[in-house]
Amino acid sequence: MGKAGGVEFSAGAPSPSEGESEERPLFSELQEYYQKKGEYEEAWHQEARWIKYEENVEASGERWTKPHVASLSLQALYRLKHQLNDALFLLDVKADTLGGITDVIKDAMIEEELLSEEQAGIMEEIIMQPHWHKHQLNHERRESKAFARRMSHEGLQLPSTGSFPRRGSITPSGNSTSFSKSDSSGGLKRVGSQSAMKKFQRKIPEGAEGASVMVGGIDGLDKTVTALVRLKSGVDLMELMEVELPTRFIFVMFGPKHENTAIKQVGRCMGTIFSHKDFQKVVYSAKDKKEILASVDAFMQDSTVLPASEWDHNIHIQPPTTTDTQGKTWSSVLKEPEEGEEEIEDHADPTLVRTGRIFGGLVNDVKRKAKWYASDFKDALSLQSLASIFFIYFACLSTVITFGGMMGDALDNKMAAAEGMLAAGICGVSYSLLAGQPLTILGCTGPILVFETILYNFCKDNGMEYLPFRFWIGIWTGAILLIMVMFDLSALVKYITKFTEEVFAVLISLIFIYESLSKVIKVNKKYPMRIKPDEPLGPCTCHRPDPVMTTVMPGAENSTMVYATTLAPGMNKSLMFMGMSLENMTDGDWAALSHEDCLEYGGKLVGPGCKEYFPDVFLFSFILCMGVFVIAMGLKGFKETRYFPTFVRQNIADFAVPIALVIMTGIDLALGLHTPKLQIPTEFRPTLHSRGWVIPPFGANAWWTALAAGVPAILLSILIFMDQQITSVIVNNKANKLKKGGGYHLDLLIISVQVVLCSVMGIPYFVAATVRSINHVLSLRKESKNAAPGEKPKFLGIREQRVTHVVAFTVIGFSIFMNAVLKYVPMPVLYGVFLYMGVASLSGAELVQRMLLVFMPRKYQPDHKFLRHVDTNRVHLFTAIQVTSLAILWVVKSVKKISIIFPLMVLALCFVRKGMEWIFTEKELKHLDNLLPAMGKKKEPEDKTELEKLDPYGSHA
Amino acid sequence: MGKAGGVEFSAGAPSPSEGESEERPLFSELQEYYQKKGEYEEAWHQEARWIKYEENVEASGERWTKPHVASLSLQALYRLKHQLNDALFLLDVKADTLGGITDVIKDAMIEEELLSEEQAGIMEEIIMQPHWHKHQLNHERRESKAFARRMSHEGLQLPSTGSFPRRGSITPSGNSTSFSKSDSSGGLKRVGSQSAMKKFQRKIPEGAEGASVMVGGIDGLDKTVTALVRLKSGVDLMELMEVELPTRFIFVMFGPKHENTAIKQVGRCMGTIFSHKDFQKVVYSAKDKKEILASVDAFMQDSTVLPASEWDHNIHIQPPTTTDTQGKTWSSVLKEPEEGEEEIEDHADPTLVRTGRIFGGLVNDVKRKAKWYASDFKDALSLQSLASIFFIYFACLSTVITFGGMMGDALDNKMAAAEGMLAAGICGVSYSLLAGQPLTILGCTGPILVFETILYNFCKDNGMEYLPFRFWIGIWTGAILLIMVMFDLSALVKYITKFTEEVFAVLISLIFIYESLSKVIKVNKKYPMRIKPDEPLGPCTCHRPDPVMTTVMPGAENSTMVYATTLAPGMNKSLMFMGMSLENMTDGDWAALSHEDCLEYGGKLVGPGCKEYFPDVFLFSFILCMGVFVIAMGLKGFKETRYFPTFVRQNIADFAVPIALVIMTGIDLALGLHTPKLQIPTEFRPTLHSRGWVIPPFGANAWWTALAAGVPAILLSILIFMDQQITSVIVNNKANKLKKGGGYHLDLLIISVQVVLCSVMGIPYFVAATVRSINHVLSLRKESKNAAPGEKPKFLGIREQRVTHVVAFTVIGFSIFMNAVLKYVPMPVLYGVFLYMGVASLSGAELVQRMLLVFMPRKYQPDHKFLRHVDTNRVHLFTAIQVTSLAILWVVKSVKKISIIFPLMVLALCFVRKGMEWIFTEKELKHLDNLLPAMGKKKEPEDKTELEKLDPYGSHA
Repeated sequence: MGKAGGVEFSAGAPSPSEGESEERPLFSELQEYYQKKGEYEEAWHQEARWIKYEENVEASGERWTKPHVASLSLQALYRLKHQLNDALFLLDVKADTLGGITDVIKDAMIEEELLSEEQAGIMEEIIMQPHWHKHQLNHERRESKAFARRMSHEGLQLPSTGSFPRRGSITPSGNSTSFSKSDSSGGLKRVGSQSAMKKFQRKIPEGAEGASVMVGGIDGLDKTVTALVRLKSGVDLMELMEVELPTRFIFVMFGPKHENTAIKQVGRCMGTIFSHKDFQKVVYSAKDKKEILASVDAFMQDSTVLPASEWDHNIHIQPPTTTDTQGKTWSSVLKEPEEGEEEIEDHADPTLVRTGRIFGGLVNDVKRKAKWYASDFKDALSLQSLASIFFIYFACLSTVITFGGMMGDALDNKMAAAEGMLAAGICGVSYSLLAGQPLTILGCTGPILVFETILYNFCKDNGMEYLPFRFWIGIWTGAILLIMVMFDLSALVKYITKFTEEVFAVLISLIFIYESLSKVIKVNKKYPMRIKPDEPLGPCTCHRPDPVMTTVMPGAENSTMVYATTLAPGMNKSLMFMGMSLENMTDGDWAALSHEDCLEYGGKLVGPGCKEYFPDVFLFSFILCMGVFVIAMGLKGFKETRYFPTFVRQNIADFAVPIALVIMTGIDLALGLHTPKLQIPTEFRPTLHSRGWVIPPFGANAWWTALAAGVPAILLSILIFMDQQITSVIVNNKANKLKKGGGYHLDLLIISVQVVLCSVMGIPYFVAATVRSINHVLSLRKESKNAAPGEKPKFLGIREQRVTHVVAFTVIGFSIFMNAVLKYVPMPVLYGVFLYMGVASLSGAELVQRMLLVFMPRKYQPDHKFLRHVDTNRVHLFTAIQVTSLAILWVVKSVKKISIIFPLMVLALCFVRKGMEWIFTEKELKHLDNLLPAMGKKKEPEDKTELEKLDPYGSHA
Repeated sequence: MGKAGGVEFSAGAPSPSEGESEERPLFSELQEYYQKKGEYEEAWHQEARWIKYEENVEASGERWTKPHVASLSLQALYRLKHQLNDALFLLDVKADTLGGITDVIKDAMIEEELLSEEQAGIMEEIIMQPHWHKHQLNHERRESKAFARRMSHEGLQLPSTGSFPRRGSITPSGNSTSFSKSDSSGGLKRVGSQSAMKKFQRKIPEGAEGASVMVGGIDGLDKTVTALVRLKSGVDLMELMEVELPTRFIFVMFGPKHENTAIKQVGRCMGTIFSHKDFQKVVYSAKDKKEILASVDAFMQDSTVLPASEWDHNIHIQPPTTTDTQGKTWSSVLKEPEEGEEEIEDHADPTLVRTGRIFGGLVNDVKRKAKWYASDFKDALSLQSLASIFFIYFACLSTVITFGGMMGDALDNKMAAAEGMLAAGICGVSYSLLAGQPLTILGCTGPILVFETILYNFCKDNGMEYLPFRFWIGIWTGAILLIMVMFDLSALVKYITKFTEEVFAVLISLIFIYESLSKVIKVNKKYPMRIKPDEPLGPCTCHRPDPVMTTVMPGAENSTMVYATTLAPGMNKSLMFMGMSLENMTDGDWAALSHEDCLEYGGKLVGPGCKEYFPDVFLFSFILCMGVFVIAMGLKGFKETRYFPTFVRQNIADFAVPIALVIMTGIDLALGLHTPKLQIPTEFRPTLHSRGWVIPPFGANAWWTALAAGVPAILLSILIFMDQQITSVIVNNKANKLKKGGGYHLDLLIISVQVVLCSVMGIPYFVAATVRSINHVLSLRKESKNAAPGEKPKFLGIREQRVTHVVAFTVIGFSIFMNAVLKYVPMPVLYGVFLYMGVASLSGAELVQRMLLVFMPRKYQPDHKFLRHVDTNRVHLFTAIQVTSLAILWVVKSVKKISIIFPLMVLALCFVRKGMEWIFTEKELKHLDNLLPAMGKKKEPEDKTELEKLDPYGSHA
C-alpha cells in the first residue's frame, strides 16, 4: 500500500508471533464506525470485547457492563451466516500494518466486484480512521469537558497532552474525513487509563492473539459487504486493539447506513463466535471458507434459544457457576438416546483396598506421602495459614483446657488440664509432623471422656487403681490397633459411607453447639443474676478485727500495736479527726464504717451479704459469646458481598474468628467485668503432685488386671478406630478436592503408638476431633483468582500442608509460658468460637439440607441433583432414618448408664446402612449416599474379604 | 370413527366452549410416546407443560422441575420450522372425541400420501394408547411397587382401586398394543393426585384452552410426519390433558425410532411456541398454514441465542424478575436506531399544579379523595392490617411517651406525656379520618421539640408565660398555613426532588437509630453495671426503728405499742425464740439482723449501700433491644426464604415486629429483672395540675406578645410545611404505586386547624413523622399471589386505607385505661422497635445504596440504571454533596445554639439542589434525581409562578 502511512506507525515494532500458526486463545473486540457520535466524528468506537464472556460499553460510554453470557439475536446470527456465505475470505495474508491489510481487502473487493473502485476507496479511508477504545475515551472526554468549560466556546484547539508513543495519534473532534496520523507523540496515554488497561491485560490468557471485528453503516452503500482476514502471523497493529496484542484476525462488515443497528448486532455475533473455543481451533487451521462456514454452523447447532416472550434479551445473564453445568451439548443430546443417568463418581478410595501383604497399606501410605513431604511445608506460604493457625490454636487450646477441666472433675484430678496440654504438645506435634493426613486435628473428644469416666468409676467401685489399669488398657489397645494396621483393616473404612459420615459429623457438631451454649448458661450458676435487688442478699456488717480484742484468748496479740503498724499515717489521722481511736470504738462505731474502711482498719465483714458477688457477669458472658459468633459469621459472610477487592474480602473472611476473638476480648478488657477467664496451668507437672510422668504398671493392682484390661481395650479400640477413621473419611471427602491423598493406615499406626505413650505417661488419649478437623479444612479453602472476567471463582481445593497444624500445637505445648497474655481471654469468648465451629461444620452437611427440605413446599425446593432422581418422600424417609440414628446416638451418649456402648452404636451405623439396601433401590442409594462395596451384586451380606478379592483395585474413578 | 369406542368415553360431557372461537390463553403440554419405559409399555407420557414458563418432568418421573425459561435447541427449532412447512394443517376440525380427531388426521395423511394406509392405521392405534400424566403415574407407581412387594412375583393382576369416572381406563403393564377402554370405573383417581391437580389447575388462567403436543419415534417409520389440528371449538378430551380443560389444538409428530430424542426436542419447541402470546393470537385466527408459519418465523426472529460455549442448556434459567425487564424485542432493536436513552418517568404530580383559583387545589383534593372514601375502609380487610395496627400502635405510643418525657424535662412539665397522648388522640384520629393521605402518620417530631425548647427558654429568660405566647404563635401559624392552602402553595412541593427527600429521610432515620441506641446506653446511667464488685458500695446497716426510741423527743409515740400492732404474731414469736424482745435489743442486735428482717421489724437501713441498686438491668436492656431488632429483621427476611407456603411466610413477615415485641417482653417478664417499663399517664388531666385544657390567651403576658408571636410563627410554619410535605412526597413516591393519590392541600388544611387547636389546648403539635410514615407504608406492601408458575411475585402497591391509622390512634387515645397490660412492656424492647424502624427506612434509600457504592470496586457494582448512564465519579460527587448536606443538617440539629435555624436549612436543601444544575448535566440529574420544573429551559432561576404558568398541567406521565 502506497498511502496513509500505515508502514510508518508500526515501523520497528517486532511482531512477537512471527511465523507461528498453531492455535492460540483469541481476544476479540467489536468496533463500530460512527459518522457522528457526540463530540467525536468519523471514528471507530469500541463497543464490546470478549475473553470468555462478553462485556459491552454502557450507554454512558464510560463503563463496562459486567461480563455476561452473550445473548445474540437469532435474526442477526442468521444474517451473519448468510453474509459469511457471500463474504471475502482472505487467509494467511502477509501484511504488518493496518494500511497494508486494508489494501489487500480493497483490491480483493474490487476484483470480486463487491465494491466499485470509488466505494473501495471510501472503505479504505474509513478503516484508517481513528480507533477509539473505552479507556482512552474516558480520559479524553473528561479532559475535553474540563477544557471546554475553561475555554467556554472560544474555539481553541485541544492540546495534545501526555504521550503514548507506541500508539498512533488520534484526533478527537476532527472535522475532516481525511486520514491524519502525523504526530506520533500526540497519543492518548494517561496514567489512569494506562493502568486500567494493564490491569485488564492481565486477564487475557498467555499467548493470546487478537480478533478485531469492525462494522458500520455507511451513507451511500446499498448492500452489505463482508471480509474476513486471517494474517499469516500475529501483528501488533498498534491502536487497533484495546490492549497490546498481536492481531491475527480482522473481520470487516459495511452496510447501508440505516441498517446500522442490525449490522452492529451481526458484529456482536461475530465477536462472540471468535471467543468460541471450537471455532478458534478451526479458524486457525482452516484451509478454505467451507471449513470456517462449517464451524459457524456447528456453533449454531449447539446454541440454545430463549423465546422472547419468556426472556428479555436486555437482561444480562450472569456467567454460570461451575457447579451448575453438566456439560452436554445439544448435539450430543440430540444424537444419542438420552440415558437420564449421569455417571456418579465412585466413592471408593484406592488406598482402602487390602494389599494382602503385612503392613502393605502402611508401606503404600508412607511411599505415597513421602513425595509430598517437602511441599507440605512450602505450600503453607500464605496469609491464610496464619489465620488458620490463630483459629486452630485458640480452638484447640480452649478445648484442651475445657476438656481438661471436665476430666479433672470426673477423674478426681488423676488427669486434668496440665495433662491435656502435655498430651496436646506430644500427640499434636508428632501427629502433625508424621501423619498421612495432617489436616486432621487430634484432640480430646467427648466419647473418649465418657469412656474414661465410666472406667474410672468402675475402678473406684472395685478398689482398683485407675492409672495402672489404664496403663494396660493402653498397651492392649495399642496392640489391637497395630494389628489393624498390619492387616490393612482400615480398608473396612469403605463401609463408612456418606450416611454414616453425616450422622456422625452432625452429631458431633450438635454436641459442640449444645455444649458451648450450656457452658455459657452455666456461668449463671457461678455468677447468678440478681433478679430482685430490692431484696438484698442480707446484712454485711463490720465487726471488730479479731475476737481476741474483746475476749481474752491465749496467744492473742496486742491489737493496738497491729493498728499502729498496719495503718497508714493518714488514715490514723482521719480516725483521729473523727474523734475516735481504734481502741475505744464501740461495736456501733465499727458497724458504721464503710465496707472499704472496715477492711482497711483490719475489721472484718460478717453476714450473708458479704460473700463475693458478681452481678452482670452472666449477661455479659452471654453477650460476649453471641458477639463472637455474630462477628465471626458476619465477617465470614463478608466474602460474598461486593465490597472491597477480592483479596481484602478473602483475608477478612479468613481472619473472621481471630478478629471476632480480639474484638470481644478487647471489649471485655475495657469494661473490666469479672468474667471467667482462660486459666491455663502455669507449671509443667502432673495435677496430682503425688504422681510422676511415668505410671507404674501395677501399683496396688493385682497381676491379672493386666489381662482383664483386654476387655475394655476392645471397646476403646473400636471407639478410637471409628472416631479417627470417620473423621479421616470426612476430611478426605472427594468434595474437598484433595490432591495429596490421605493415609489411613499410617495415621492409625501413629495413633496406636500414641495410645501406648499416653497410657504410660498418664495423659489423655488424643484422636481425630471431627469438628476441629472440619473447621481446619474450612479455614484452608482455596479459590481461583485470575479467571476470565465474569468467570466465577472456582473452588480449587484445600491448602494441604502441615505447618498450621505443627505451629498451632507447638504453641499449645508452650502455652504455659503465655499466661501473661492468655489470662485476658474470657472463656465466654471461646464458647463463642465453639458455637461458630459447630454451626460452620453443620452448615455443609447434606443431611441438614435434607432436614430443611421437609419444611419447604415442593415447588420451592432447590434443584438438588438427588431430588431430580429420587422421589421426595423417599428422600424424606432416608433423612428420617438418619435423624433417628442421630437421636439414638445422642441418647446413648447422654444417658450415663448406657453411654459405654456408644462406640458399638457408632459401629452399628454401618450395619444400619447395610440394612437400608432392603428398603431403598440401588438407584436411590446411589443418589442419596455412596454404594457399599458389595452393592449391586448380591443382597446377602457376604464375607468381606471375599468381596475385596473380587474387586482388588476397587472401582477407582 | 367407527371403532375403538372413542364416542363412549366422552359421551354426555358438554363442551363448555362450544361455538366460541376468539383468542384464549393456552395451556400446552408435551406427551411423548414410549414403546417401553420401565413397567409401562406402549403409552404416552407427559414430559413437559407450559403456562407461561416451562416445567419438565424430572428424570425420576416423580417431580416437576421448577418453572423456568424454556431453553430450546436451535437445531430442533429449525427442524420444527421445516417440519411445519411439510405438515398437515387441519383447521377448524369438528370432532368431539380423540377417536374422531384421529380419524380425521388418518384420512388426511392417507389422502396427502404422507403415510400408507397401514402406517396410518398404526398411527391411529398409537394415538389412542393410554395417556399418562405425572400425577397419575406417581400414585400408580407407588401402588404397583407396594403391590409387587406384597405379591412378590406371583403374577397376580393389579386390582383397580379408586374410581375416576370422567377419565378413561388405563392399563399399566399391559403387554398388548391393542386398544382397551372398556372399564370406565377402573380409573386412576387418588385423593392425593386429584388435589395436586386441582391445586395446579388454579394456576391456569381463566378461560384457558389446551394445546396437546404429541411426539414419538416409531419403529418402522422412515420419515417424519407432522399434523397440526385446530378444533372448531374446545372439546374436553378427558384423559388427554393433565387438567380438566377443553382441548383446542393437537400437534402430532411421528418419526423414526432412532430420532426419538431429537423429535422430543422438536416437541418442546412446539409446546413453547404454543405458550407464546403472539403465536396464540395468530393460531386462533389464522385462515391458512401460511399465517401460522409466519408467526413461527416471528417467534424465531425475536428469540435470543446463547452460545453453547458460554451457557450450558441444562441450567434452568429462572424466570426474570419484573424489575429486570426493559421490554424491547430484538425486532424493534434491529429496526429503529437505538436511542440509548429510555423515557424517564416524570416526577411531577398533577395535584401539585397551581389552579389559579382560591382553594382550588383543596377543592380538587376533596373531590378526588371523596370517591375513594368508602374503599378506604373496605380495602383494609386483611390480616396484614392487623399486623400493621399492632406495629404502628406500639411505634407511635412509645414515641409519644418518649417524646412526652423529653418534652416534660425540657418545658418543666408545661407539656409532657399526658398532653402528648391527648394530642395523639385528637390529631391522630381526626387526621386519619379526614386526611388526603392517611398513610402518613402524624407524630411529635424532633425538630418541633427543638423549636419548642428554644422558645420556652426564650420565654423563661424574658419573663414571659410560655403557653399563652405559644397560643398566639399557633394562631399565626394556623393563619399562614391556611393562606398557603388558599393559594395552592403546596404546589411548591414540586421543588422537593429525590435529592431533598433522600437527605431528609436518611437524616431522620439516622436520628432514630442514634436515639434508640443512646437511650439503651442511657439505661446504664440509672442502672449502672457493677464493674468491681469486690469493692462494695458501702455499708448498709440496720438501725433502731426511730430516733424517738433512744432520744426523748416531743410527740414521740410509745414504740413498744407500735411493734405490738405492726408485727404479725409469728414474727414476734421468732424474736422471742431468739431470746430477745424488740425493747431490749442493743444496737449490735439490730445491726445483726438481715436487711429483710430489719425492715420487717420496723428498723431502717442506713448507709450508702442501702440505696436501691439494680445490677444486670443495663446489660439485659441491651439484650432486649438487640433481641427485638434481630428477631424482627430475621422474621422480615424470612419472606425471602423457601420455607413454608407463601402465605405463611408473608404473615410471619407482616407480624415480624409484633412477634419480636411479644417474645422479648415475655423473656423480660420471665426473668423478672427490674428493667425500665413503659409508664403511661393513668389519668386524663394536664401534667401541671395548675392549668386546665384551655390556655388563656394572654395570662401574664402583655398584649403585644400576640403580635410578636408572628415572628416565630414564620419559622414554625416553614418547619411544619417542610416536615409535613417532604414526608408526604416520600409516601406519595411513584415507587409506591399508589392508586388513590395524595392530598397535599387537604392535609395542610387539617394541620393548620390542628395547630390552632393544639395551641389553644396547650398540647404538642403533631406533624407528619417521616420514619413512622415510611414504616407504615412498608407494613402495608401488597404482592401478587396467583401468578403463572415461576413468575416472581410482583409488587402491586400499598394497601391504601385509613383503618390501620384510625384504629391505632384511637387505641393510643384510650391507652390510659390499658396500663394493666402496658406496664409489662420494657422500654428497651421499644427502643429495639425504634432501631428496627430506623434501619428499615434507611435500607430503601438510594442514597444509602450510592454511599455503599463507594466501597465497591467498579466491577462488582450492581447493575443500577443510573450507573449505566452516568459516570461513576459523577455519581460519587452527587452522593458526596448529599452526604455533606446531611452532615450539616445533623450538626445544625445537634448544636443547641443554632438549632433554631434547622427549618431554614431544610428549606435550603431545595436551593442547593437548584445550584447543582451548574455542576451536573441535565442527563446526569435525570438519572440521579428528578428534574426541577424549570430544568432544561433556562439556567437562571425564574419567578416560580411564571414557570407554573408556562406548564400549567405539569408534564404528567
